[in-house]
Amino acid sequence: MRYSIRMPTNRIINVELGDRSYPIVIGRGLLGGGFDLQPYLAGSECLVVSNETVAPLYLDKVMVNVHGCSVESINLPDGEAFKTIETTASVFDKLVASKANRDTTIIALGGGVVGDIAGFAAACYMRGIAFIQVPTTLLAQVDSSVGGKTGVNHPQGKNLIGAFHQPRVVLIDTATLDTLPDRELKAGLAEVIKYGAIADVTFLGWLEQNMPALLERDPDALAYAVQRSCEIKAEVVAADEREAGRRAILNFGHTFGHAIEHCQGYGKWLHGEAVAAGMLMAAELSGVGSVELSRLRRLIRAADLPSRPPAIGAQKMLAAMGMDKKVLRKTLRFALLHRLGEATVTSEYDETLLRRILEAAD
Amino acid sequence: MRYSIRMPTNRIINVELGDRSYPIVIGRGLLGGGFDLQPYLAGSECLVVSNETVAPLYLDKVMVNVHGCSVESINLPDGEAFKTIETTASVFDKLVASKANRDTTIIALGGGVVGDIAGFAAACYMRGIAFIQVPTTLLAQVDSSVGGKTGVNHPQGKNLIGAFHQPRVVLIDTATLDTLPDRELKAGLAEVIKYGAIADVTFLGWLEQNMPALLERDPDALAYAVQRSCEIKAEVVAADEREAGRRAILNFGHTFGHAIEHCQGYGKWLHGEAVAAGMLMAAELSGVGSVELSRLRRLIRAADLPSRPPAIGAQKMLAAMGMDKKVLRKTLRFALLHRLGEATVTSEYDETLLRRILEAAD
Repeated sequence: MRYSIRMPTNRIINVELGDRSYPIVIGRGLLGGGFDLQPYLAGSECLVVSNETVAPLYLDKVMVNVHGCSVESINLPDGEAFKTIETTASVFDKLVASKANRDTTIIALGGGVVGDIAGFAAACYMRGIAFIQVPTTLLAQVDSSVGGKTGVNHPQGKNLIGAFHQPRVVLIDTATLDTLPDRELKAGLAEVIKYGAIADVTFLGWLEQNMPALLERDPDALAYAVQRSCEIKAEVVAADEREAGRRAILNFGHTFGHAIEHCQGYGKWLHGEAVAAGMLMAAELSGVGSVELSRLRRLIRAADLPSRPPAIGAQKMLAAMGMDKKVLRKTLRFALLHRLGEATVTSEYDETLLRRILEAAD
Repeated sequence: MRYSIRMPTNRIINVELGDRSYPIVIGRGLLGGGFDLQPYLAGSECLVVSNETVAPLYLDKVMVNVHGCSVESINLPDGEAFKTIETTASVFDKLVASKANRDTTIIALGGGVVGDIAGFAAACYMRGIAFIQVPTTLLAQVDSSVGGKTGVNHPQGKNLIGAFHQPRVVLIDTATLDTLPDRELKAGLAEVIKYGAIADVTFLGWLEQNMPALLERDPDALAYAVQRSCEIKAEVVAADEREAGRRAILNFGHTFGHAIEHCQGYGKWLHGEAVAAGMLMAAELSGVGSVELSRLRRLIRAADLPSRPPAIGAQKMLAAMGMDKKVLRKTLRFALLHRLGEATVTSEYDETLLRRILEAAD
């Protein structure tokens, strides 16, 4: 049981990407005086991009992390509905108004939406300026803040417009999870479970044993869950930064999950909730045995996450997954399991089974 | 006289950028049946991005270059005023509507504005899809289509929003110059002259001798001018893709030129015209001798390009160059000449001389 050993110092994971390598620093109390961000800034000026929910809680603290710098800030409206080009344009306007230049650093303070928009703005402003991720939700800490995927939604599809743009450092203060609503904490646990399912059955076992501690927000349990998740993500990203192949295993449960979100309307189900139900559908499509399927289902239920999709209808789901005639011709690619702890990306799947899984959910 | 040797085949220049390397293919009659673009497509689907001026002339021909593929097209409004995020969003809408995916290739058919927007859309759609440049203006052929700079304007600044995204091939059919208005041809020659001024005094001599032939649109003269310009640009870009340093010598004349365009309102002076006047201001700031300065001035006049900026006023020009208090503190960087044929990027310049140059233009 690795987590039972108390670690006195910060946990640091390096994302190895040559000259784009960067550390993920994990610890409790890093915001405020706990960590000096200055060595990671491109210059002495930065723009903190946050939102109306997170800024009142943590903006003052981040100011201490960049003490002595010239700091501007902008608060975006909160929610996936605002992850748009228009919101990104408001960040550009703020950058221009504050005469930001190539040496300015953008600091994303918030959840996945803030990180995706701020990162995309950093990727495009003057064709790329430095940025730093300070994720404050579990989902952002274990997933969206690591790996350099940035972007916004198009009315017709999620994350259709974006860029790969790696941060200079990811600063994870696990104390920010103290203020996270229960439902969002659980949604983040869906991605944590995902890492066990696709890459580490030992970690899956650890999660089974420690799910009650995680739900009770035991600091050490949360820190270890974040650490192990980031380790797995860092390893996958280092091997395939631009998702030419293997990185797509991180999409396990997401093809179904995105379709659920799309059909329900974004925001009704949280991303993690849709991914939880989606992982079970993907596991079934993988053809893993019923023992393994039940094991994953039990863990998802233990995290108080949905184990079944909402009633949407097979046709609507298929359409949302892009399975119209045009894409059927090319066949869709799924992240599927060989077994728990081992995933692959493949277009070899059982179409009849896929339809049965979707129809069963009606 | 290299150009006097007739070259029977296409001229090919390779831009050496590791796994992002690509050829620039130059020839007369490449559009239509003259060159097969299919080997450069990511898949069998493409979107041709053009404008309302160029499409009626050349869209049918490009269709032959990608014969057998599934081709969609979109025509943007013509002009620098439309180089905006909003126009880029219309390209995203078209991509989504035609169910474009990671294997779709964007083909930019037109001048610099079309290439910059289409390239930026390709950089961002699904975090990056393939694209091809088919430049139809001299300016685009010798400058903007090569090197991977893409992007759009912000109301407060030119090219503020963009990405580095290299094309898979640049296809230059010099026959497209037949339909180019005289004024645009001359504006393109300003960038051609720039290459001689910053990197090749022999080429500058060739330009002096062949300027009449170029203005008369002698096909061989134009082809050689395009070839030598692309060779120089390819070399500079290969050495410094992301403009960490040396690539900025390509901005010779542009700091002044952009300020002229900005103060005049974009479109009044063409980019090349502003750069022509800007190069002489930059040459003067460089402190090159009067013989060299006169030589450059004569060549610019021989191309029927402006050798003096319009009456704007030193204060307005300084402000447009970003020389307010904030940037003065950091000092501006200029591309300056050691001598004709040799440039450098420096923040060491004579501020008094700068003011005198700007005041002389009042």
